Amino acid sequence: MVFSVAVAGASGYAGGELLRLLAGHPEFEVRTVTAHSNAGQRLVDVQPSLRSLAHLTLVDTTSANLSGHDVVFVALPHGKSGELTAHLPADTLVVDCGADHRLESPDDWAAFYGGDYFGAWTYGVPELPTAHGKQRERIVGARRIAAPGCNASTVALALAPGIHAGAIEAQDLVAVLAVGPSGAGKSLKLPNLAAEILGSANPYAVGGTHRHIPEIVQSLRWAAAGVAAATAGTSATDGQPTTTGPAASAARDATISFTPVIVPMSRGILATSTARLVPGTSAATVRAAWESAYADEPFVHLLPEGHFPRTADVLGANTALIGLAVDEAAGRVVTITAIDNLVKGTAGAAIQSANIALGLTETLGLTMNGVAP
Amino acid sequence: MVFSVAVAGASGYAGGELLRLLAGHPEFEVRTVTAHSNAGQRLVDVQPSLRSLAHLTLVDTTSANLSGHDVVFVALPHGKSGELTAHLPADTLVVDCGADHRLESPDDWAAFYGGDYFGAWTYGVPELPTAHGKQRERIVGARRIAAPGCNASTVALALAPGIHAGAIEAQDLVAVLAVGPSGAGKSLKLPNLAAEILGSANPYAVGGTHRHIPEIVQSLRWAAAGVAAATAGTSATDGQPTTTGPAASAARDATISFTPVIVPMSRGILATSTARLVPGTSAATVRAAWESAYADEPFVHLLPEGHFPRTADVLGANTALIGLAVDEAAGRVVTITAIDNLVKGTAGAAIQSANIALGLTETLGLTMNGVAP
Amino acid sequence: MVFSVAVAGASGYAGGELLRLLAGHPEFEVRTVTAHSNAGQRLVDVQPSLRSLAHLTLVDTTSANLSGHDVVFVALPHGKSGELTAHLPADTLVVDCGADHRLESPDDWAAFYGGDYFGAWTYGVPELPTAHGKQRERIVGARRIAAPGCNASTVALALAPGIHAGAIEAQDLVAVLAVGPSGAGKSLKLPNLAAEILGSANPYAVGGTHRHIPEIVQSLRWAAAGVAAATAGTSATDGQPTTTGPAASAARDATISFTPVIVPMSRGILATSTARLVPGTSAATVRAAWESAYADEPFVHLLPEGHFPRTADVLGANTALIGLAVDEAAGRVVTITAIDNLVKGTAGAAIQSANIALGLTETLGLTMNGVAP
Amino acid sequence: MVFSVAVAGASGYAGGELLRLLAGHPEFEVRTVTAHSNAGQRLVDVQPSLRSLAHLTLVDTTSANLSGHDVVFVALPHGKSGELTAHLPADTLVVDCGADHRLESPDDWAAFYGGDYFGAWTYGVPELPTAHGKQRERIVGARRIAAPGCNASTVALALAPGIHAGAIEAQDLVAVLAVGPSGAGKSLKLPNLAAEILGSANPYAVGGTHRHIPEIVQSLRWAAAGVAAATAGTSATDGQPTTTGPAASAARDATISFTPVIVPMSRGILATSTARLVPGTSAATVRAAWESAYADEPFVHLLPEGHFPRTADVLGANTALIGLAVDEAAGRVVTITAIDNLVKGTAGAAIQSANIALGLTETLGLTMNGVAP
Repeated sequence: MVFSVAVAGASGYAGGELLRLLAGHPEFEVRTVTAHSNAGQRLVDVQPSLRSLAHLTLVDTTSANLSGHDVVFVALPHGKSGELTAHLPADTLVVDCGADHRLESPDDWAAFYGGDYFGAWTYGVPELPTAHGKQRERIVGARRIAAPGCNASTVALALAPGIHAGAIEAQDLVAVLAVGPSGAGKSLKLPNLAAEILGSANPYAVGGTHRHIPEIVQSLRWAAAGVAAATAGTSATDGQPTTTGPAASAARDATISFTPVIVPMSRGILATSTARLVPGTSAATVRAAWESAYADEPFVHLLPEGHFPRTADVLGANTALIGLAVDEAAGRVVTITAIDNLVKGTAGAAIQSANIALGLTETLGLTMNGVAP
Repeated sequence: MVFSVAVAGASGYAGGELLRLLAGHPEFEVRTVTAHSNAGQRLVDVQPSLRSLAHLTLVDTTSANLSGHDVVFVALPHGKSGELTAHLPADTLVVDCGADHRLESPDDWAAFYGGDYFGAWTYGVPELPTAHGKQRERIVGARRIAAPGCNASTVALALAPGIHAGAIEAQDLVAVLAVGPSGAGKSLKLPNLAAEILGSANPYAVGGTHRHIPEIVQSLRWAAAGVAAATAGTSATDGQPTTTGPAASAARDATISFTPVIVPMSRGILATSTARLVPGTSAATVRAAWESAYADEPFVHLLPEGHFPRTADVLGANTALIGLAVDEAAGRVVTITAIDNLVKGTAGAAIQSANIALGLTETLGLTMNGVAP
Repeated sequence: MVFSVAVAGASGYAGGELLRLLAGHPEFEVRTVTAHSNAGQRLVDVQPSLRSLAHLTLVDTTSANLSGHDVVFVALPHGKSGELTAHLPADTLVVDCGADHRLESPDDWAAFYGGDYFGAWTYGVPELPTAHGKQRERIVGARRIAAPGCNASTVALALAPGIHAGAIEAQDLVAVLAVGPSGAGKSLKLPNLAAEILGSANPYAVGGTHRHIPEIVQSLRWAAAGVAAATAGTSATDGQPTTTGPAASAARDATISFTPVIVPMSRGILATSTARLVPGTSAATVRAAWESAYADEPFVHLLPEGHFPRTADVLGANTALIGLAVDEAAGRVVTITAIDNLVKGTAGAAIQSANIALGLTETLGLTMNGVAP
Repeated sequence: MVFSVAVAGASGYAGGELLRLLAGHPEFEVRTVTAHSNAGQRLVDVQPSLRSLAHLTLVDTTSANLSGHDVVFVALPHGKSGELTAHLPADTLVVDCGADHRLESPDDWAAFYGGDYFGAWTYGVPELPTAHGKQRERIVGARRIAAPGCNASTVALALAPGIHAGAIEAQDLVAVLAVGPSGAGKSLKLPNLAAEILGSANPYAVGGTHRHIPEIVQSLRWAAAGVAAATAGTSATDGQPTTTGPAASAARDATISFTPVIVPMSRGILATSTARLVPGTSAATVRAAWESAYADEPFVHLLPEGHFPRTADVLGANTALIGLAVDEAAGRVVTITAIDNLVKGTAGAAIQSANIALGLTETLGLTMNGVAP
């Protein structure tokens, strides 16, 4: 069976990456591509790398244009998806690559984004260990999926196994990320100019202000072993593990110092995510936590002792590579995680989640091999 | 049917790219990967981006290890392939990504490479217009194929249609190429260090010394319309169009000023290739020459008037994008051609040619969509 | 004596570079810095690299604010300088880094820029050989100077010696430039975004449309030996060599195929500029032409035979490095020229010219050493 | 007075940067430049950016060649300086840019470097707050100076004020650095190749193994306020503050998780250095600690609230720019520090220290303005 697909926001970087992957997906057929100011243009004139989709023309981003497809991928700036998708049929699979439906806490939404809050959808990071099993289980059969923030999923995947296993402390996490500027989209702002970024490393959102922080904390809350299965159920409406019961309240949320640094590579995230070792935990126990979390995952790989990933190794791939070290002198576990922000961080996660939701082979249309060098 | 495949030189950049593409090829199965100093290591430890090939271990590059496969791809420095492949069975398809079998003139070989000369194999640029039809026709059924030099095929594809159609002059061509350093392989030389290349544009092989020059001239010789079909046949042994007959002698060879400039991108070639307009030729006639040459090609695309390609648009893809302009004031036709040096310039051309040689669908295992941004 | 200085357009890249150099100039004191939308801000908040000028605050770009200084440097988009500087006193030295006063031909201005034409000022490339001696001689005592276009001066310096000496032909020149995006200024356009430029080579203004073409042709016209000194005088008003007399008309203007390619380095130009060798000219004669042109120049250096420059070698320096080769097979002289577009291409040329105009030591405030690697 | 200068290791990146700065220093005259395999070549052929030093030729790196100068700068790999400088006259100022004389603890030397230990020299980071005043005081009159490790001084300058003032805890520091590959020198190793680094972020020395860790801890030990002035004197021989008395023993050493990440810029370090806020300390108190430490420093600048530095802003400059934030939710102080690894991190620190040692104006030959963009 071939599923008909629409992509909203097809002129942006995330939309383009969705289309690149969808073009190689054997069960998806892109029928409709929408944009705002570029509507009316040939897709290939706006996205000149998408040669195999030269037959498509961009139309306006409206609910009407998105209706009538089996699957709708939305790649719009945050705040643009809520209204647009509200009236799509309940049995249409909608995968939102924006932030609108990631946070289950209205307070977090208000504090970090603001504007109308449209509620959380099933979070699209299948490999995330939660107190109730992998997040994958919640995605099966879902029809509303929130693809993750690229930085957020990178750090959550890096640290969740240790928190889940009780090997690292969830408080006082520190993550510093080298990130490529494609994550900022095609926003015409001075800091995004090539001359500002070439030959330089530029921090932003320093000191606890980045919007992905509550999303990381939310994922790590789910991963915390202390969230007792007995009291925390799965919400009927959205497939997220609820964390509002008494056991959840008992567990203190993670705290994290989070600093992204733009570096001169078009795409990629290299996250150095560290956590305090739980006293008395052996290095072997630490490694076992990550090994057991990701042993069977097609797209999240723990590297052998002493090996650490580079972002080039996952360019274009849906792979997250994790290197792990225990620094006894510093009392910290150090994880290095490499992903392609536009693939595993966004479009690849969206398609992987869609595959799961629809009961397809999870890896369809995705590769684990990076384009390196 | 699945063809068994061996890759010699699997630890290098070209070898790695062959394997990345082969891993996604539905009819090829990589059984053997060979290397020199890395023999004995797991492939994925040497090529950490090739996650799906984690089961392979590098063995020594010997004829014995390469024997017994349906297809052998060779990605070794020039001079290393001749002996190695001499004893492989005649019905094994051998595709050499090195320079050893590209040049049909022993004199050219001696002048630009030196060392033992092993003769020319069928040249692996299927789209090249020749006086006898597309080069593709010669590749069908071939069992010894020389994949092209990346710079050479880029410039040849850029200019051959105009020469073939008599719209541009073959003498006094000028080509300047912005190229990424992956073309130099893993050679541990000072000019290849990141600190030498980052933030800089570095020319090399200036003034007519680059080894790809005779290869370009050879391709353009084949393209020249004056090489009469009646007198020039196809050599029985290697599938190359012969150009030693009287008609070929009559046509003067192309002359070209060729300058490559290393720029800070890991891969990609952007060739600005210009030629004198044949007096009296209209812009429409010029454009028609390229249009007719590549109208039906899956991997070589002429962009519309006023559009010019960027290398990012073909990253990871087997596509050559060509933009074309006629500069009346300068009296020159200007072509801009973008390719990925490791794909269309090397490994993709090798696999495309192998597909053709074996009678498979030409596009198998290859994409025309680039990984951009 | 210390000269008081104002810089108009101090918030841009060229303005910032002027200020960086002026901050180290022993005879210039920056008193006033002007901007448009950034007026009212501290300079260092807009140009955070200019730590030693933290005491300066941006004011509006008006004639009134620029008045009352000994020297005014203008770094504004083209079309903005004419009116602004028209009412500055005649004895104020005004150096315009924009294009408004570079072209002596109103027709060229109309064809390539358009809008009001304000006439040519003395062209600020001191080393340029002209039929009447170096351009430097015209700059002495000038009070209105047009700093050059960065691409234009690079190509003119590269080729003028050969044309001046009759060693190369002025027709059918071909220049292809690898250029950094800082030349485009802080313009908030999609092609200037880092994600568009990182990892890619992007051509623009292909096919004879670039605005620097008439400026190159103008410089090469001056360099042509055939422009007889007897008939061509120096205009009283602007210090340019006039080329409208009969001898000038007799000489055919240069023709040039000119293609710039944006590459991922913040600054720098590497120009590959080629010309047909005048038949019968020996390689030694060719080299002698460039040697004699630049032997005593502090900032334009011909490299030894076989050496070619990299842009990193001139980063931050006021130096143009030229490598030269004669490609006998191609019948072309190939020059490779490296400059820093913001220094020798703009701000350094402006200050060097100001030094000359004011009778100061020509090299004051400028370095010939690049910041490499 | 002009001091005669020799530079050992003039063919490397650090040596080249010393020479670039020395060429613009009014009181230093470079008489001798030494190298190993490049001895006999013209300096400018090995360091083509150093145009003003074209008169110098490289000689062998021997004690004899270095003798007879007022000042000797040594820029050699670690382990090469000890023997070489042992026999230079005591009144010659020797500044070592290598690691050989940085660590006062033989155990640290043995653990992180190994080989013969030659003892600590006066540490060349003048701005470092110590329990006994600024490190500058120890440099005055010194004749043996150890220029700092670039990563080490960056992190030490970032965190020392807070530790000195008791505003942050010295234990459980976390620093992650984005660094350019020039810090690795001209070492011909695979990870240093451009194709490995372009478009990628590559970690190294993960998990507590980097050699700069003990150097950071040493600097922070000196900065700790608990090191009582009464018991800790200055060693007669080397000008380092001793930290072996009882008070020093009482203070626990800093612990730090330190991770460097190579990013695709030729030079620069952007260090994100975080520390736990001492409970009860206000944000104003935190900021005051850094303000008071660096208020009068010419080359270390605290940026205003909400401002954070980029490495481009200090390229080529001897400036360290520090941005500071208090993340109350995370309980951490976050500092972002930008330096040019070859200037403030190495050669600039060496020259600044030499200026101080010789009683010259501290800023001679150095600029605080970066080459940006």
